[in-house]
Amino acid sequence: MAEILSDVQMETPQQIIDIDRVGVRNIEYPISVRDKTRDVQPTIARISMYVSLPGIFRGTHMSRFFIILNKHRGLITQDILKSLLEEMMLELQAQSAQIEIRFPYFIEKEAPISGMKSLMNYECGFFASLNQTKVFEQYFEVNVPVLNLCPCSKEISRFGAHNQRSIVTVRICSRKLIWIEDIIDLVEGCASSPLYSLLKREDEKYVTEQAYNKPRFVEDVVREIAYNLDRFGRINWYEVESENQESIHNHNVYASIRKTCSS
Amino acid sequence: MAEILSDVQMETPQQIIDIDRVGVRNIEYPISVRDKTRDVQPTIARISMYVSLPGIFRGTHMSRFFIILNKHRGLITQDILKSLLEEMMLELQAQSAQIEIRFPYFIEKEAPISGMKSLMNYECGFFASLNQTKVFEQYFEVNVPVLNLCPCSKEISRFGAHNQRSIVTVRICSRKLIWIEDIIDLVEGCASSPLYSLLKREDEKYVTEQAYNKPRFVEDVVREIAYNLDRFGRINWYEVESENQESIHNHNVYASIRKTCSS
Amino acid sequence: MAEILSDVQMETPQQIIDIDRVGVRNIEYPISVRDKTRDVQPTIARISMYVSLPGIFRGTHMSRFFIILNKHRGLITQDILKSLLEEMMLELQAQSAQIEIRFPYFIEKEAPISGMKSLMNYECGFFASLNQTKVFEQYFEVNVPVLNLCPCSKEISRFGAHNQRSIVTVRICSRKLIWIEDIIDLVEGCASSPLYSLLKREDEKYVTEQAYNKPRFVEDVVREIAYNLDRFGRINWYEVESENQESIHNHNVYASIRKTCSS
Amino acid sequence: MAEILSDVQMETPQQIIDIDRVGVRNIEYPISVRDKTRDVQPTIARISMYVSLPGIFRGTHMSRFFIILNKHRGLITQDILKSLLEEMMLELQAQSAQIEIRFPYFIEKEAPISGMKSLMNYECGFFASLNQTKVFEQYFEVNVPVLNLCPCSKEISRFGAHNQRSIVTVRICSRKLIWIEDIIDLVEGCASSPLYSLLKREDEKYVTEQAYNKPRFVEDVVREIAYNLDRFGRINWYEVESENQESIHNHNVYASIRKTCSS
Repeated sequence: MAEILSDVQMETPQQIIDIDRVGVRNIEYPISVRDKTRDVQPTIARISMYVSLPGIFRGTHMSRFFIILNKHRGLITQDILKSLLEEMMLELQAQSAQIEIRFPYFIEKEAPISGMKSLMNYECGFFASLNQTKVFEQYFEVNVPVLNLCPCSKEISRFGAHNQRSIVTVRICSRKLIWIEDIIDLVEGCASSPLYSLLKREDEKYVTEQAYNKPRFVEDVVREIAYNLDRFGRINWYEVESENQESIHNHNVYASIRKTCSS
Repeated sequence: MAEILSDVQMETPQQIIDIDRVGVRNIEYPISVRDKTRDVQPTIARISMYVSLPGIFRGTHMSRFFIILNKHRGLITQDILKSLLEEMMLELQAQSAQIEIRFPYFIEKEAPISGMKSLMNYECGFFASLNQTKVFEQYFEVNVPVLNLCPCSKEISRFGAHNQRSIVTVRICSRKLIWIEDIIDLVEGCASSPLYSLLKREDEKYVTEQAYNKPRFVEDVVREIAYNLDRFGRINWYEVESENQESIHNHNVYASIRKTCSS
Repeated sequence: MAEILSDVQMETPQQIIDIDRVGVRNIEYPISVRDKTRDVQPTIARISMYVSLPGIFRGTHMSRFFIILNKHRGLITQDILKSLLEEMMLELQAQSAQIEIRFPYFIEKEAPISGMKSLMNYECGFFASLNQTKVFEQYFEVNVPVLNLCPCSKEISRFGAHNQRSIVTVRICSRKLIWIEDIIDLVEGCASSPLYSLLKREDEKYVTEQAYNKPRFVEDVVREIAYNLDRFGRINWYEVESENQESIHNHNVYASIRKTCSS
Repeated sequence: MAEILSDVQMETPQQIIDIDRVGVRNIEYPISVRDKTRDVQPTIARISMYVSLPGIFRGTHMSRFFIILNKHRGLITQDILKSLLEEMMLELQAQSAQIEIRFPYFIEKEAPISGMKSLMNYECGFFASLNQTKVFEQYFEVNVPVLNLCPCSKEISRFGAHNQRSIVTVRICSRKLIWIEDIIDLVEGCASSPLYSLLKREDEKYVTEQAYNKPRFVEDVVREIAYNLDRFGRINWYEVESENQESIHNHNVYASIRKTCSS
């Protein structure tokens, strides 16, 4: 006869205090993400899953997070986030649930003159929560590396201008589907130049001259992106950050804007 | 005669949009921190400094952050955070200012039986801001590595119990000085055992048996710390996080509580 | 008529000095890896590619690394490493070439008692080179997280024993194919216990008791793995490292053995 | 009467296999480093210490590494590395010993035109070993961030040129003392421009124009440094690496040269 193992998690805890979030962190897991041109794209995610825990229960049943994840294996896309959260609340008898999914996303990009194609990688993330009143909230994050050329350096120097790789982070909450690809296009259009994995000499000439003709402070970039997101429609709120890996300094410079849209 | 270099930062930007935060990030810099037993302790910090920027100015003058930092060189302690922020607002003509300072902090600790002394390192941080209405807010963060032994594993197994290193993060906002040392003591008292850099065999026996006698879920730890912080006094709000580097899994488990104190 | 852009890389450099390695680093790229049970497994790699550069050429043509990579897109497995290196030497007119490919690898694993299945992730790598005399060398690396329970802590304590997550790294050079799965099995058999993503209570009891019955120092683990690799056959050389994330300390303990096999 | 705790480490292991390296890793510890202008400079190090272990002993006594470290607390400079290693061999009855010490190092630097002073940080390291035949070997590492401007981009473009932050790593083995400061000067002289923490507008103009007048491929930089190290004298061997954080790509480009000097 099987031994009955006691369920310590169900005991009453020493201190009856509600816990905001309890769960599992940094699970490496293969998922699929909707892709504007190729239907779905397989990738490898880092996933964290949390629920709330009422003061009267000592512990949550951590293994259930994995059982839920495994049920949807190979088919974890942004479309099932809400039902995943509902399952988490049900299986773990929780009042609220949260999930964070970070992953690299690949886009085939053409070099500006030669037209040669190559893959570019963008770190992305989906973040979703269901709260006590069953309100579902979701936002996504896209990190877009770009080139920014300093307007001050260009203006005051007889020739040349310092420029550098910048990471622009955009977080968007929207009720309707917005393609990752469209946000990347919007961001790249606001920087001195997009980045490419593969550039031939004629492309490098084009990128260099374009960047020199389009100098941007870190402040200019976040403002121009904010201006365009304000006009994008379908957005509830957004946050824009940009961090320049300054080529003349050993530290970075940074700017950010966070806004609630009236639309 | 010296050339007059134009001040591109003072131009009117294309888009008149306020920027929430603009500044410099991840500056490595030697500082001093107040130490409960040794007056001050020299350490190496990672510093970020931000101000707000009104929509009408194109850029901030990033070099001034360094001029301010260098003025206080060797004497940057938590006591001067407010005046640093005031200088930032003044020099950069800003409506608000923020500073983040992260650093390792060392405490000499005695092994529990042999009494042998050794240094333990704790990652800490000071975070301060001055807002548009001149309200000064400040909190500090302490990361305390501890040992946690699983109550469920102990209960259901005939012998042994899995245990692991955990990182507990406590953030505290208080109007009065609270010593880093006191928060570390409080946290270590709520875990299965503190960690030590140097343990002789008799100490290792003590730590092993103590941890076995004091099993703690990640949920128990954050609750017990919250319970004690509620009774600590002088605290406006706190946040407690704990992350167990599970010895039976390749992922971590996590719990957190955030509270505003009525005191 | 198209402008002729000068090829600066082909100029004679200021200093006629041979360069050992020149290339591209940390390219994030989707690849496929041979899988013992499922034929191939898609994953996301970090790739670095290098060639040597004779003293008489000023620079290498970095874009060609990407052209070669893109030619094999979606079909980059360990079987084509040699031909990739040959292409690199040909296209870049180089005397030697090297490639490094790091990626997460997933295995479906059954919990020891309940038999519940879940995915476990292992960080792996392929490293290959072709030298001036056309000698092809290749090794692979597997990182296996395991649980180790301290024999000293168990022996001197009346009950319990500290245990922790350990990362074992094995690098193997072999002329014949060795499955990643087989090395993972070998390593997990030498530790106090394997790790699992999903454990039910009966599994947790089993893992806890098994680990207590099988205590292992970091030294025991690398010796036992070395002993088994010595008997594995088909191996030219290997290197074993193990790093324990000590649950009683804030630092790690480490051991390593490197050997050339006579077989 | 005190209990006698058995010394499990002294047991005979299951497999009589020599272990190359066993020890403690990533200890955060305050140290002092010799400074060319200010005598000594306090900093915070990451220290790893290893010894060999003969096949007949089951384990090493890890706590002794800390006892040795603590004996020299506050006075750990490069001058005592040899005696530290001798103590490690003696206390741990080992045939060989190794130590690795990594730390940030600060230099006060003047901006090129305004002369304004500011601190720049450089990641450095000391590495030392004593082998079975009592041969002492030592090398140090300096990481120097610099600006590099692409000669190809400049040549083919009508205006501008892409440039970026680069990290140059130099490792030097020398029988005589070589100042960190002198290697930093040598490296900065071989790049398009040094980096500065604090630059006023007139300095930024100077740095921008100087970099445009002194374009450097990653290959040029390692060659020029190698050329100068060949003429530096007192060097047994060196290794030079440079990694450009390309502003037009999302990956880095890299070059390295390793040489034994005849001097």
